[in-house]
Amino acid sequence: MPVSYRAMKKAIQKACEMGVGFVSVRNSNHHGIVAYYAMMALTHDCIGISMTNASRKVVPTFGRHATLGTNPLAIAAPAGKQRPYVLDMATSVTALGKVEIADQLGKPIPEGWAIDKDGLPATDAHRAFDEFTRTIGGGLLPLGGAGELLGGHKGYGLAIGVETFTALLSGAAISPLTYPKTPEGQALPANLGHFFGAWRIDCFRPIDEFKAAMDDYQQVLKVAPKVDGQDRIYVPGEKEYEAAERHQREGIPINHKVATDLRELGRELQLDVILQPRSY
Amino acid sequence: MPVSYRAMKKAIQKACEMGVGFVSVRNSNHHGIVAYYAMMALTHDCIGISMTNASRKVVPTFGRHATLGTNPLAIAAPAGKQRPYVLDMATSVTALGKVEIADQLGKPIPEGWAIDKDGLPATDAHRAFDEFTRTIGGGLLPLGGAGELLGGHKGYGLAIGVETFTALLSGAAISPLTYPKTPEGQALPANLGHFFGAWRIDCFRPIDEFKAAMDDYQQVLKVAPKVDGQDRIYVPGEKEYEAAERHQREGIPINHKVATDLRELGRELQLDVILQPRSY
Repeated sequence: MPVSYRAMKKAIQKACEMGVGFVSVRNSNHHGIVAYYAMMALTHDCIGISMTNASRKVVPTFGRHATLGTNPLAIAAPAGKQRPYVLDMATSVTALGKVEIADQLGKPIPEGWAIDKDGLPATDAHRAFDEFTRTIGGGLLPLGGAGELLGGHKGYGLAIGVETFTALLSGAAISPLTYPKTPEGQALPANLGHFFGAWRIDCFRPIDEFKAAMDDYQQVLKVAPKVDGQDRIYVPGEKEYEAAERHQREGIPINHKVATDLRELGRELQLDVILQPRSY
Repeated sequence: MPVSYRAMKKAIQKACEMGVGFVSVRNSNHHGIVAYYAMMALTHDCIGISMTNASRKVVPTFGRHATLGTNPLAIAAPAGKQRPYVLDMATSVTALGKVEIADQLGKPIPEGWAIDKDGLPATDAHRAFDEFTRTIGGGLLPLGGAGELLGGHKGYGLAIGVETFTALLSGAAISPLTYPKTPEGQALPANLGHFFGAWRIDCFRPIDEFKAAMDDYQQVLKVAPKVDGQDRIYVPGEKEYEAAERHQREGIPINHKVATDLRELGRELQLDVILQPRSY
């Protein structure tokens, strides 16, 4: 995270000086929320992007073993009166964590999230998670799902694009090799790759015009008639901004596992950990 | 197309001089194959991107009227001994042309391609195409499908990203307003926007290392075990390269409508049009 922060700072600095700036990172590890870095560009009136590769969790189109990371990408662009546009998306249908949670709750997963070791739709969360974590086969599906009928080759192709910018350009390991081990099974340092970039908007168009156009565009999206059962159309990032505001007012909900970890850490460090009990 | 060609040339020239280069275009029209421009970067040992917005055809997540274009994007990156990686994808599940063809053939469309004016899954190609072209409602679904369950909000969010770079940054019209008309219904000049960019690879890593890494990565993708009924995993662009090679050898198959148009154009221009009849 410190390296990613400094890399994005450098990209923004280059953009402020020259119009655009890009920085790639290798020999890294999980850097947290990918949008965090893209959003750093917002206060500089830049469009920001950030990407990272990740350990193998996603099957390629027509394959039944995971060879791709969820390879998320983020784009952030400022608005005027409205909130910024902030996209933060994995290039897979969903996250492995959601399969794990379904497993823990003993629930099935929807068809279209993952395939099993035989390449068939996986709906048994326990079996899917178990087969995957024991590297027997199977994995998450790329955005667009299995095969090409609903565009799965697009999510697959986009994951390779993220890999190209994050790993191939930086010299980091490709997703299946990001967490290497010795022949004896001992973990070696991780080698993930990231990519950060910023465009100074006023090199293309006066910043106020851009922001006003972003405001107007968001309104156009929002007024479209809704499907039954939905009363809002969201701009990417809007749900997260609202959640952040709510948490700032009401506190951050954490689950029992995190609460236990925090209390234990507090004891270790001889610090008071005061958590407010609430029911959800 | 001539403007897009010149814009991408300019982006590549800037990249060769400075490391990266980006050019946006407004007041434009349909510029053909989006990957064509990204691929122009390949012979300069650059990674190329190109994007365009388009007339409204795609519904936003939770909406039932089309407000987004199919907003395609392309990324091209060179390899060494293998073919380049060339992604060319709409941010929608599929193209409206596929619904039109199904309509012409009297076939249904798969659930997950489009929704009707009521926001329900559209499988009747004729009704879907008719409702859409008469702007009664409905439209194509963003990549990931309806709602959020299979990641439809990601395709939707990506379409907005393409709109941000192509329209908001250049000052072009947003997708619903790309083909304006007078109050009397007369067509006014189109105002689509495009975005082109190039990164000089050797500013990040020696070009030979990058190309060798791209070769190796393609092999890793291809050797994954296949799902039943599939014997190959493709790298984005591979099918199109093979088709181009086949057409170079055997000629380009064209349908009857195009053949008729070409013959008519030949008569008009007093040119011989020689088409080789073949059955497919």
